[in-house]
Amino acid sequence: MSKLNSLNNNKESGFENFDDCAIFQIDKEQSIIQTVDFFTPIVDDPYTFGQIAAANSLSDIYAMGGMPLFALNIVAFPTETLNLDILSSILKGGKDTCESANINILGGHSIKDDSPKYGLAVTGIIKNKNILRNNGSKVGDDIILTKPLGTGIITTAIKKNIASITNINDAVNVMTKLNNILSNIEKKSIINACTDVTGYGLLGHLNEMCKASNKSAMLNFMSIPFLDQVKTFAMDGIIPGGSKKNLEYYKNEIDFDGNIETYQKLMLADAQTSGGLLLSVPKNESKKLVNILNMNSDFNSCIIGEFINKDKKSIIVKNG
Amino acid sequence: MSKLNSLNNNKESGFENFDDCAIFQIDKEQSIIQTVDFFTPIVDDPYTFGQIAAANSLSDIYAMGGMPLFALNIVAFPTETLNLDILSSILKGGKDTCESANINILGGHSIKDDSPKYGLAVTGIIKNKNILRNNGSKVGDDIILTKPLGTGIITTAIKKNIASITNINDAVNVMTKLNNILSNIEKKSIINACTDVTGYGLLGHLNEMCKASNKSAMLNFMSIPFLDQVKTFAMDGIIPGGSKKNLEYYKNEIDFDGNIETYQKLMLADAQTSGGLLLSVPKNESKKLVNILNMNSDFNSCIIGEFINKDKKSIIVKNG
Repeated sequence: MSKLNSLNNNKESGFENFDDCAIFQIDKEQSIIQTVDFFTPIVDDPYTFGQIAAANSLSDIYAMGGMPLFALNIVAFPTETLNLDILSSILKGGKDTCESANINILGGHSIKDDSPKYGLAVTGIIKNKNILRNNGSKVGDDIILTKPLGTGIITTAIKKNIASITNINDAVNVMTKLNNILSNIEKKSIINACTDVTGYGLLGHLNEMCKASNKSAMLNFMSIPFLDQVKTFAMDGIIPGGSKKNLEYYKNEIDFDGNIETYQKLMLADAQTSGGLLLSVPKNESKKLVNILNMNSDFNSCIIGEFINKDKKSIIVKNG
Repeated sequence: MSKLNSLNNNKESGFENFDDCAIFQIDKEQSIIQTVDFFTPIVDDPYTFGQIAAANSLSDIYAMGGMPLFALNIVAFPTETLNLDILSSILKGGKDTCESANINILGGHSIKDDSPKYGLAVTGIIKNKNILRNNGSKVGDDIILTKPLGTGIITTAIKKNIASITNINDAVNVMTKLNNILSNIEKKSIINACTDVTGYGLLGHLNEMCKASNKSAMLNFMSIPFLDQVKTFAMDGIIPGGSKKNLEYYKNEIDFDGNIETYQKLMLADAQTSGGLLLSVPKNESKKLVNILNMNSDFNSCIIGEFINKDKKSIIVKNG
């Protein structure tokens, strides 16, 4: 459930910050969790776009520790200017990704529009005692990130036709993989807080976690995983508008080491699509959890910093 | 959950016909029901548009006999060309209508777009034994319609600046009123089938009910309620594109009396927004139900026809 930066900054518009999903307790045991997300294509291949949009929508459910039950398609499509085969491919991508998450798409809503958009409304369920929120971080918790960053920068490079096949495949791999990485974790209770990294970037979503938990976070730039060539593109100024807006919006919350360059700040602020989970876990459990996560994932989960007592700044970024 | 006519006609695109909502049984007692709906403004006033969009989204839940629990906003807005006050008014309209339905909006998703769009993803719950579907019509059931038709034609007249204040108020009244008319009905079990009349018009949604129930329907044109001046506008050719497409798409399913004019057929096919419920009720219960409904509604519920044995045509329309 990312929101327009410009709207998010305008409390008058009726939005406020929530957890990743809406959550509604239906009885003492369990709650319904619900999310809705859709966007315009960020890759050329329609099937891949459908996969990414579905993985991104499902992520909100996983980030709260929930289990998806079913989904509805959300479709906008220019039927007069684009071939319906393109739409079929987008929907097939969404369907296949939902099947890999063991859920069905039970219907949906579509409208004619000037530009194509796709996403899902996903309904899930969770035992009340297992709900993961973004407000439980404790001092001394390690911060774990489960996917490398940089998909915003790579998709911008794709749009500028300067991304290699390898760059594209790497970013697509990150964006299409489900965040169901906690499903096999038996001791979920060790996780004090969780969110997923999407449109506001690492800095934005970590800042939300800090504010909600009334803590600050200390990051080490050198320990943060990025996709290959993200640094090179960032140094060349290949930065999406959303990532620049993120940095502009969050920079006053952050104390950057003096030797951190602007391009590095933009890498940390990079707006992600279907990014990884951000976990807050006690230091004595974090390495064990990282090992377990790494057995279940294509990506290396990394400890990128720790939570500290609330400081003047929400996030402190060291460089090495 | 209306769909693009052009998509609906294309089974390849991945859509099939469903009930008004997705329904997912979570245990022996109850099911989650979920709908998603949004569209571009159909009236000039943003607050009214928000009210209409919310009432329209909620209608799918009521049409299955369910109780809404909460909703999420779905927003597309051109932040660079339209004032955010307009968006605030739209959201306020949605919020107020949700409050009148005793639910809260718990978040949502918004994107920048060239044209504004608004709607809701509504999550509801229902006891399994109370689910109303569109497939239970029995021979001899009366067909009850709970709101007058013609909002598509009136909103087209509004766009052409030829609707009077009274026309506008009448249509807005129909479109903003909740379809929660069954909430106070104790004997819901007498209702054999139910749906709501939206984008496919009376003919489209009744045809769906006929197909799902394996029955045909006999309508009497003279008994069908229309908003004031709908007939005049229709005779003058003030017909939305969607209504023309509806008639084109469904005409082969329908046997019209020889003296029914094209403009009358278009009135029956008129694409509705937040239209009334269409109920299938045994003849010996229908008048009693109409009386009860009329005590709880601003509109006169009307018996507009009856279900008969499956005929060559799905719907037979008599004229007086």
